[in-house]
Amino acid sequence: MKAIRSVEVKEFVGKTVYLQGWLHNVRRMGGISFIVLRDGWGTIQAVTENEADLEPLANLHLGTVIGLTGTAVSTPQAPGGVELHQPQIEIITAVRELPPVALNKRQIKASLPTILDHAVVANRHPGRQATFRLAAGAMAGFRAALTARHFTEVQTPKIVASATESGANVFKLGYFGRSAYLAQSPQFYKQIMVGVFERVFEVGPVFRAEPHDTARHVNEYVSLDVEFGFIENHFTVMALLREVLADIFAEWSANYQRELAMLDMALPSVPIEIPHIHFAQAQALILERHGVDNSHEPDLSPQDERWLGEWAMQEHGSDFLFVTGYPMVKRPFYTHPDPQNPTYSNSFDLLFRGTELVTGGQRLHRYEDYLAALETVDLPTIPFETYLEAFQYGMPPHGGFAIGLERLLMQLLGLPNLRLATLFPRDMNRLVP
Amino acid sequence: MKAIRSVEVKEFVGKTVYLQGWLHNVRRMGGISFIVLRDGWGTIQAVTENEADLEPLANLHLGTVIGLTGTAVSTPQAPGGVELHQPQIEIITAVRELPPVALNKRQIKASLPTILDHAVVANRHPGRQATFRLAAGAMAGFRAALTARHFTEVQTPKIVASATESGANVFKLGYFGRSAYLAQSPQFYKQIMVGVFERVFEVGPVFRAEPHDTARHVNEYVSLDVEFGFIENHFTVMALLREVLADIFAEWSANYQRELAMLDMALPSVPIEIPHIHFAQAQALILERHGVDNSHEPDLSPQDERWLGEWAMQEHGSDFLFVTGYPMVKRPFYTHPDPQNPTYSNSFDLLFRGTELVTGGQRLHRYEDYLAALETVDLPTIPFETYLEAFQYGMPPHGGFAIGLERLLMQLLGLPNLRLATLFPRDMNRLVP
Repeated sequence: MKAIRSVEVKEFVGKTVYLQGWLHNVRRMGGISFIVLRDGWGTIQAVTENEADLEPLANLHLGTVIGLTGTAVSTPQAPGGVELHQPQIEIITAVRELPPVALNKRQIKASLPTILDHAVVANRHPGRQATFRLAAGAMAGFRAALTARHFTEVQTPKIVASATESGANVFKLGYFGRSAYLAQSPQFYKQIMVGVFERVFEVGPVFRAEPHDTARHVNEYVSLDVEFGFIENHFTVMALLREVLADIFAEWSANYQRELAMLDMALPSVPIEIPHIHFAQAQALILERHGVDNSHEPDLSPQDERWLGEWAMQEHGSDFLFVTGYPMVKRPFYTHPDPQNPTYSNSFDLLFRGTELVTGGQRLHRYEDYLAALETVDLPTIPFETYLEAFQYGMPPHGGFAIGLERLLMQLLGLPNLRLATLFPRDMNRLVP
Repeated sequence: MKAIRSVEVKEFVGKTVYLQGWLHNVRRMGGISFIVLRDGWGTIQAVTENEADLEPLANLHLGTVIGLTGTAVSTPQAPGGVELHQPQIEIITAVRELPPVALNKRQIKASLPTILDHAVVANRHPGRQATFRLAAGAMAGFRAALTARHFTEVQTPKIVASATESGANVFKLGYFGRSAYLAQSPQFYKQIMVGVFERVFEVGPVFRAEPHDTARHVNEYVSLDVEFGFIENHFTVMALLREVLADIFAEWSANYQRELAMLDMALPSVPIEIPHIHFAQAQALILERHGVDNSHEPDLSPQDERWLGEWAMQEHGSDFLFVTGYPMVKRPFYTHPDPQNPTYSNSFDLLFRGTELVTGGQRLHRYEDYLAALETVDLPTIPFETYLEAFQYGMPPHGGFAIGLERLLMQLLGLPNLRLATLFPRDMNRLVP
């Protein structure tokens, strides 16, 4: 008999169905036994008053892989409104040891280190399953948004010759007798590919060797990267970012209601126009509202960002706020300056509830501007020779942004640690699992 | 005026349109000048008898970024059946140097090293553009095929703690004072994720430190990986692979006709059932047809594969042939043996026109089988501790396959070198661009 998925049982009421999955829970209440099967999509409960139906499970633990045959019965009080009667259990793979993390509670009770040490098993918990299903949905929504707008997907090299992009720390590796590095972002390549396809996106890993041991840092994450040409300025990029985020949430809303409900997640609404404020005005606002003068600072502090998030909600009813025009000194060399006031840049951060979610902006596009910019920051041109070739042979005004997949999940789900939004996190102390 | 794309001009016949892109070609024939614009999607020709229309291009080279306004006119003899009249050219970014690779010929005339050295520019050639657009189409078709079959996309770590999978060479990197490695495949993680989602796929980079300097090797490539549970055996995996390949070709056929035509590529047909032959039978066939006795060999040689490809075409009219049951000694330790004859494995290679295109098979799923398999190949269990946890706590029979994106392109397009199917190849001698 062909197996159906747990989420399909409701379509087979009155029929005998066969499912496969993991033994998720067994409960006995009075003379009634409940057997819960978990598969890759959810759980389904079977009910019996006949103790003999449970006999195949004797001496086996939760997690045992089973086949389950039963009659689908519509039962309003059952989770999902449907359950199986007359269950017959078949053992596919026996489990004889107690799992290191209990998966049958609504919340995982284990500590963060235990969850991470045993992520191989912990990721099977329905709440973790739902989190990473949303990650898949975010990637799908991201790609659909960009494909519909005629962007082409690229996959660019992760082993690179040069360590220098924006001065961040990079991982070094041995490469046939010489040194190479892991790409800290696809920035250079996605710009180069604007010269080929005009509009490109990439979903792939990025590597940061920063020795930061915080709840908001991991050393490898998934970056959703976008770059496109023939823009007017960074506001063209911000408009696209708004649409991409709205499309990701639309994808979740259309196809991930089960996961959103399981995680108690209410989707934020993305305003038709996300409010924006210039960096200098943001500092003036903070001085006015909170009496703190940061006008000598070239960047916003986390406290500044929180205050601006509060202001965006009070003033504009928006969870989202664009801060534009960050000072050039704090942005990488390829950033396009504000033509009106070259101290500031044509760049932006998107804050979500007072925390940075996405960074982006317009890039330089003229070859001579690159030569000047590298000289300004005292970098040699040699390591950038092939990158510069893109500009030497014609590049349009262009820009883009990068969304950190795990950070998006963390912030939208309100998770306390980025590692909980990462399948198998890599940090200073963690290389396994 | 909002710019349209070159491929959209035919929808605007009789109207004034505005395009943006690169100056692809200028030709003067008698008193008539042809100006060709290339954008991210194709080319469009403008025609004028007025030499003054070309004045903005004085002293500029091909590759200059331009805006082009004109009237769209249906012209059967023009490429694409439409051209622009009364062109007005606007310079967006001037190019003052001759490009290192001529892009305006139907074929790139440059040598392979020149193409690779200047890939930043060479990838702008319409034929290269088409090749990498097909790569995007293959990824889209792959994902659509699997999403429709309830597979979930995952992104697994590329920095790993252990070098040991199948004995292939791996890149070593420094990781906060200790050593780590680049994943040579997502094999272990995709198996682990079968425990979470049952059916998973991943599109991502893999890294091979093999010191092979051949036309068929690069050291970083894009792998399209699939793994799923509750299979019967490797034939379940082969059936899915057939459907995935058919769906990739269907995606190309539906949305990439322009690219296929430009590359003179005829899509192969995928038989409803791809013929298959057991490894032992394949050796017997080769002895019978070619008088070569390889029965002592545990693997097929390239010549063997070519002979089998010829046989598949003659006997079955098929470009594709599954060879099943490769000897266990040549397959990685996690391979499931043939229960009837454990010398052979439940694995397969898919040959396309006599060359290996995809490898896959059924994996072990019982914890005790893993312990025994590691002992057989004399590997310690410690480096595999977290991998083994997946099996310790319940895994169903499962299997999968991996398609090399660049190899798929190379074989289908009949390219002479894998590097030509790679945006920015990494080999023993090449780290840039």
